[in-house]
Amino acid sequence: MKNERIYNFNPGPAALPLPVLEEIQQEFLNFKGSGMSVVETSHRSKQFEEVLEDAVNRTKRLLKIDDRYKVVFVQGGASMQFAMVPMNLLGNDESADYVNTGTWSTKAIKEAQNLSKLVRTAASSEDRNFCYIPKNIDFSKKAAYVHITSNNTIKGTQWAEFPDTKGVPIVSDMSSDIMSRPLDMSKFGLVYAGAQKNIGPAGVCMAIIREDLLDRAPAGIPTMLDYKTYVEKNSLYNTPPCFGIYTIQLVLKWIEETIGGLEKMAEINRQKGELIYSLIDGGDFYRGTADPDSRSLMNVTFRLPDEDLEKRFIASAAENGFGGLKGHRSVGGCRASIYNAATLKAVEDLTAFMKDFAEKNG
Amino acid sequence: MKNERIYNFNPGPAALPLPVLEEIQQEFLNFKGSGMSVVETSHRSKQFEEVLEDAVNRTKRLLKIDDRYKVVFVQGGASMQFAMVPMNLLGNDESADYVNTGTWSTKAIKEAQNLSKLVRTAASSEDRNFCYIPKNIDFSKKAAYVHITSNNTIKGTQWAEFPDTKGVPIVSDMSSDIMSRPLDMSKFGLVYAGAQKNIGPAGVCMAIIREDLLDRAPAGIPTMLDYKTYVEKNSLYNTPPCFGIYTIQLVLKWIEETIGGLEKMAEINRQKGELIYSLIDGGDFYRGTADPDSRSLMNVTFRLPDEDLEKRFIASAAENGFGGLKGHRSVGGCRASIYNAATLKAVEDLTAFMKDFAEKNG
Repeated sequence: MKNERIYNFNPGPAALPLPVLEEIQQEFLNFKGSGMSVVETSHRSKQFEEVLEDAVNRTKRLLKIDDRYKVVFVQGGASMQFAMVPMNLLGNDESADYVNTGTWSTKAIKEAQNLSKLVRTAASSEDRNFCYIPKNIDFSKKAAYVHITSNNTIKGTQWAEFPDTKGVPIVSDMSSDIMSRPLDMSKFGLVYAGAQKNIGPAGVCMAIIREDLLDRAPAGIPTMLDYKTYVEKNSLYNTPPCFGIYTIQLVLKWIEETIGGLEKMAEINRQKGELIYSLIDGGDFYRGTADPDSRSLMNVTFRLPDEDLEKRFIASAAENGFGGLKGHRSVGGCRASIYNAATLKAVEDLTAFMKDFAEKNG
Repeated sequence: MKNERIYNFNPGPAALPLPVLEEIQQEFLNFKGSGMSVVETSHRSKQFEEVLEDAVNRTKRLLKIDDRYKVVFVQGGASMQFAMVPMNLLGNDESADYVNTGTWSTKAIKEAQNLSKLVRTAASSEDRNFCYIPKNIDFSKKAAYVHITSNNTIKGTQWAEFPDTKGVPIVSDMSSDIMSRPLDMSKFGLVYAGAQKNIGPAGVCMAIIREDLLDRAPAGIPTMLDYKTYVEKNSLYNTPPCFGIYTIQLVLKWIEETIGGLEKMAEINRQKGELIYSLIDGGDFYRGTADPDSRSLMNVTFRLPDEDLEKRFIASAAENGFGGLKGHRSVGGCRASIYNAATLKAVEDLTAFMKDFAEKNG
């Protein structure tokens, strides 16, 4: 396998579309005829400003969002957002509702508490090891916001539909499913997404914030943790993560122009999920870990009859050119992360391999 | 010029060594035989952990630092450090001494004040538009730390020697001259450097902190702004900016193995500086803006007889393949940023161009 690319089912950083990688490689020494690499180009150059503007405009078109929403690029990943969200949006005399659907939600809750902010766990699926998305949640009408994790990479669950919060703005960590399907942004006050799963490399986080929420930030928070800093300077207050934004721009262009938009992207993702879940459901060898109505189309988590077989499955898959299938170290088992850049062909071949492995070892 | 690389004198993001860029390009689709790009590789993979470990070890060797110093990689650039430094190192009943040598020092001071921290401007060169580095500064022995900016990209000044602070640890923003010369780290408690000038792309900041300073951080600061988070998890608390760390590792390898270490790097940088400063001093056409004893070997700032000539100089340089020579928008004039990756040949050719331009227009 040394000279060939493998099928990459990594949970993140994850596969990126091959045409995007090829374009980056092709122009890496000379970016848009500038005579320098994109990583050597000024963030205030005409070339880079076009990249940034295009990334913002494509985001707005793909998600069909209006001008009340501002698209910015922040460093520090979702983990930094766990702090920025309550620092900016939650006053000291207020409370926010959080839905706990696993590891990342738990971290978001703990970070808010670490900052002495008042949060309420409005619902949790911890009672069954986070294998489902809670329903019929009684949100507080006084909550400053409702925080959810739209897709849970470790537990393999995903919100199929978003809750009715009676006008309270939803804040969602969408790190692992942004741009995988259309989105009705009108329910959301803030969406953030570390890029390294569906839209780019590690080191850049997209945030989309409704402008009326910008005024909530108190004085005295660090300049770099204030969303206004990014909105007012169009993500150019200081030197942004240029290479990451550039890659995102190319991925969004690929979604828009090659795939044909988010409806088409969602249809492909549905097909991929059906392929693998129907194989899992079609026999006794594989067992999905998430409740069927809460299953993720991004991270398919499953077990084999025993741990020894799981080890052999992962090793045999690797030998056959399927990488990244080991479950998260905190839960074990297997996981196929099939984000946007995992092709239908990759999932078809994986499914064929899984079928073959089950027949030989079942 | 569309198909050729130019001489890039950008102030940052800035030129990177061509062999480094070529290596990145060459293995961009298949990183170390993994079958995936470096931007698709897990930050917890063996391949990436080797990169990270090598970057840390090369930093320690190049700077000859002992194990009391921890090398970590943080997001947010120097601007984030302006907040992290006082949040971590400055108690509410303490004061820190800052030396103001220009735009970036001023921002560091303002950010500390924004966080309601007590800082004292121990010295400033604002009286002469920051054209020199202050001497014989009376530091407070009670200061929690002394903050300096080792090189000032906009004003073209650089600390040739570091002050004696009588045991108070120096904290230095070295974004624009880290790894350009050997360093006696024993004077420093913390050194930080946005990578995008001497060691890598934008989006990753190197921080080197003496371990005894780690205990100063109060409870309740954001996890992602606590140096301990990075030290305890070896920069892997969350997904780090992998591509940036990878590029830094390759640049450090280039400094160590191709250049031959920091003494050699410093000698080349001295030669480059001498070439261009001796041309400036050898006639009346160009005029250096910094006091000779405070001149930067990284950013050579100079003026021409009038602004019209400056415009023509910058345009003519661009036509001849010399980019990035415009001074910062806040000060005007001209600036040649000659960081590590600017070759001796590039500076020789620039100097020849400048000589020719002066003869034709002087």
